[in-house]
Amino acid sequence: MGEARDIEDLIDLMARLPGLGPRSARRAVLALLKKRGPLMAPLAQAMAHVALTARDCLTCGNVGTADTCAICANPARDTGEICVVEDVADLWAMERGGAFKGRYHVLGGTLSALDGVSPDDLRIPALVRRAAGAREVILALNATVEGQTTAHYIAEALEGSGVQVTTLAQGVPVGGELDYLDDGTIGAALRARRQF
Amino acid sequence: MGEARDIEDLIDLMARLPGLGPRSARRAVLALLKKRGPLMAPLAQAMAHVALTARDCLTCGNVGTADTCAICANPARDTGEICVVEDVADLWAMERGGAFKGRYHVLGGTLSALDGVSPDDLRIPALVRRAAGAREVILALNATVEGQTTAHYIAEALEGSGVQVTTLAQGVPVGGELDYLDDGTIGAALRARRQF
Repeated sequence: MGEARDIEDLIDLMARLPGLGPRSARRAVLALLKKRGPLMAPLAQAMAHVALTARDCLTCGNVGTADTCAICANPARDTGEICVVEDVADLWAMERGGAFKGRYHVLGGTLSALDGVSPDDLRIPALVRRAAGAREVILALNATVEGQTTAHYIAEALEGSGVQVTTLAQGVPVGGELDYLDDGTIGAALRARRQF
Repeated sequence: MGEARDIEDLIDLMARLPGLGPRSARRAVLALLKKRGPLMAPLAQAMAHVALTARDCLTCGNVGTADTCAICANPARDTGEICVVEDVADLWAMERGGAFKGRYHVLGGTLSALDGVSPDDLRIPALVRRAAGAREVILALNATVEGQTTAHYIAEALEGSGVQVTTLAQGVPVGGELDYLDDGTIGAALRARRQF
């Protein structure tokens, strides 16, 4: 190969990122080599900094640079509402919408008998403890079998605690065309129809 | 946004890599955050190391970690044959094949009146100097208009120097199906047909 050993190592590491294969990793490294000063050095520094400082929030499981994440540390966010998400990616997706003003609880996955994921692996006991001080727990889990199984388990675990358990509405996405929607979504939207 | 400032900065930098957009950069950073120890820290270190040590070979323009690249420093490689390529990516592609045992000369682009790229911007004077000591210059430029224009310019510049100037053969790619080939390639393959 024409690459120097160090550059090959860098390509191998880059190829382990999701969405990058050996070929696109090589392309990315070539682009970095062309912009060593303006891009490669700052990127390496930013990555080293985050690798060193990033940690999971002890309260909600969000990732941040302190033991308490920016959302949990924000007094303007309603502590009475806890939005339960599977993953940090889902938390970021909710925040992009900007519609939710409460706190989060990141499970870190979904229950799975097959993969041996039990409630104790998922911050569910911590959620039950937190829920005692809240008015409402909003289950914003993915509309997959695993997500909905986990949602049912949590709803049962919170039964009798007095907290209101809700879930995201299902229906036609904004801008969605009926012709391209699956039957399940159309059925759910029809059942949940409302006064115009 | 739910991301901490440092993490957002890292996503912005990653999104500037070719093949990664804002969405896939976020996905890549999330994957890195999940594997801080085994992947993120080593990647940051490898990148910082290459950013610091990588330099262009003073002889051929290949990228390496010394003033003379591994190929130019290898006494087993024939100095009589110089393969001219546009880019380091093309050099790597040639080396993957492993068919060429000579030296390279990386132009760093193609001539372009539109973009104001002149021969002096492209290591062409250095190539003319190197060619004086070689038997053959192989033009392995891309089969694009810009690549072929540059090839013609170099062939003219080397005229009268006594060095043999050759170019890669055009034809049907190995494993290629005629039905999926463009007319230009089929025409070139037909004109260059040989005894079976």
